[in-house]
Amino acid sequence: MTSKIIGSGSYIPSQVVTNLDFAKHNFFHEDGRVFDQPNELIAQKFLEITGISERRYVEDNQTASDIGVIAAQKAIADAKIDPETLDYIIVAHNFGDVKSRANQSDILPSLASRIKHHLRIKNPACVAYDILFGCPGWIEGVIQANAFIKAGMAKRCLVIGTETLSRVVDRHDRDSMIYADGAGATIIEASTEEGLVSFATVSHTYDEAFYLYFGNSNNKACPADERYIKMQGRKIYEYALSQVPKAMASCLEKSQVGIDQIKKILIHQANEKMDEAIIQRFYKLHHRPVPKDIMPMSIHEFGNSSVATIPTLYDLIIKNQMKAHTLNPGDYILFASVGAGMNINAMVYKL
Amino acid sequence: MTSKIIGSGSYIPSQVVTNLDFAKHNFFHEDGRVFDQPNELIAQKFLEITGISERRYVEDNQTASDIGVIAAQKAIADAKIDPETLDYIIVAHNFGDVKSRANQSDILPSLASRIKHHLRIKNPACVAYDILFGCPGWIEGVIQANAFIKAGMAKRCLVIGTETLSRVVDRHDRDSMIYADGAGATIIEASTEEGLVSFATVSHTYDEAFYLYFGNSNNKACPADERYIKMQGRKIYEYALSQVPKAMASCLEKSQVGIDQIKKILIHQANEKMDEAIIQRFYKLHHRPVPKDIMPMSIHEFGNSSVATIPTLYDLIIKNQMKAHTLNPGDYILFASVGAGMNINAMVYKL
Repeated sequence: MTSKIIGSGSYIPSQVVTNLDFAKHNFFHEDGRVFDQPNELIAQKFLEITGISERRYVEDNQTASDIGVIAAQKAIADAKIDPETLDYIIVAHNFGDVKSRANQSDILPSLASRIKHHLRIKNPACVAYDILFGCPGWIEGVIQANAFIKAGMAKRCLVIGTETLSRVVDRHDRDSMIYADGAGATIIEASTEEGLVSFATVSHTYDEAFYLYFGNSNNKACPADERYIKMQGRKIYEYALSQVPKAMASCLEKSQVGIDQIKKILIHQANEKMDEAIIQRFYKLHHRPVPKDIMPMSIHEFGNSSVATIPTLYDLIIKNQMKAHTLNPGDYILFASVGAGMNINAMVYKL
Repeated sequence: MTSKIIGSGSYIPSQVVTNLDFAKHNFFHEDGRVFDQPNELIAQKFLEITGISERRYVEDNQTASDIGVIAAQKAIADAKIDPETLDYIIVAHNFGDVKSRANQSDILPSLASRIKHHLRIKNPACVAYDILFGCPGWIEGVIQANAFIKAGMAKRCLVIGTETLSRVVDRHDRDSMIYADGAGATIIEASTEEGLVSFATVSHTYDEAFYLYFGNSNNKACPADERYIKMQGRKIYEYALSQVPKAMASCLEKSQVGIDQIKKILIHQANEKMDEAIIQRFYKLHHRPVPKDIMPMSIHEFGNSSVATIPTLYDLIIKNQMKAHTLNPGDYILFASVGAGMNINAMVYKL
């Protein structure tokens, strides 16, 4: 028994925010020093490193659970299922619902409860819970759905990744330009044939637990009790480069699928240069050059939408909305993600 | 294959807060009207309904993850295991780490990551994640650990419930007297004999999703953007009375254990009168009178510590720290919890 994705949906927020939109921000270094470059140059360097030229933000009246509902509705319609037949609703996020201009996370009730409520699902046997696992939360949700299916506790699960990082950014931190909003959802069903072939998860917390953390503004004039998403970019880069290819290789080995059979690698998008380096190293481990078009990128337009990135990418490709990237029945996909925790996971999936 | 608790630990915070300690609070009704009774009378009525005369709060320098670490260390010592052999660390909570006098929840990284970090566990294969599932989060964590064990993904899991509700209470709301802090932890291991016999979970969100919610102070003079834990007490009472006995009965039926074989019922403690009414109805469904001493109560001294209540209660009883309540090998326990979501779960467990 394994698990298959029988439908997907995503919500790409409507507000397009370009790098130029940050032109009026006052950026500070972590130690409080003002950036001594004009913002245009900062934006140019930022684009070169990360590949991000635009990102999407939700509208003022939307929250993470609201956009999770929209993605879920699309996935349910795509799978052509009765939502009352769902055994689980698993929602991955990192900050809960944060209203516009508010600084408090609202996670009571869980986002899964809210989403089930707004989907108007009555079935009490449909268990709704949230998972906090950093950016790899959606993949981990799929792995958990698969566990419930294997344990005979579920046949059909809705797994959602939804996030509004725009609500927790420090506007005085250049890293704020990375973060974005979005939601992706999938219906996972018990399957005896294709679907999830193998998976691997690692949690590195000994030295790495606080590489992504909740901290004060780089602008020391801001209130000390207001905190934002923060990262130690250099350390994350080195960590990801050293650990992600290994986790991907371990997952691939478990799958017994040959590396040449992998048609696409859907990797979390936080930094284009980092992703390219990870893929280079992954293929180098297998003594192969990197195949052309192996790694679809959405980061240029969508930035890093955390848990939403990979299910959104999958949804766009499967619905033929990304040029140069098509998938066909029987194709193998390798998914991989890395994020706060620090956590890394990967899965080999047969379409 | 099933799952057995091979060790437990709990942390009971050191600050004892009595009902009299609320004497100087100005209580308001939900609609903003001032309570027209002296606080002594409010406290007396409160005690009569809920059974709570004291509750425990953490010290100013402690957070939910800090006390989760202490409970986990005790559980690890009790189980006499090497923490590096853990396959999962599952942490249930509802508000993350909220520092003293702060209003922001800190859930980046997850509390599971923090706890794994502070336990100094190196093994990257030990997957650490948080679950948000209201007060029933610890039981749901055990059910998830059991799923991983059944699916062949784990042999040994640490499941923690930790909460500092004192950090999210509205001091102008009489309900604030209910809430408490605490942490409980258990080591769950694959077992072929005794252990988890059956379980049942329901999520009611159609009408009930916002019975527990994050809302404004009852004192309308407080800032509109500051929110606290809030409940619709009457609705929760009616809901719990109608749904919890049914869920317990469904779990008991699945277990094929006779009701007379149940030695103790460990139920979530939010309101003594409510728990008594639930148990009355549960036994009435089975045409039995309520057996003497069937339901150990910790609410008088500890209040409602959310996800921590049941693992703490289990830990105290199993270590012979509750008079009139002893457990022996072969005894059956029925666990049951209800809380935000609204979620209810139950499990029949053989010692």
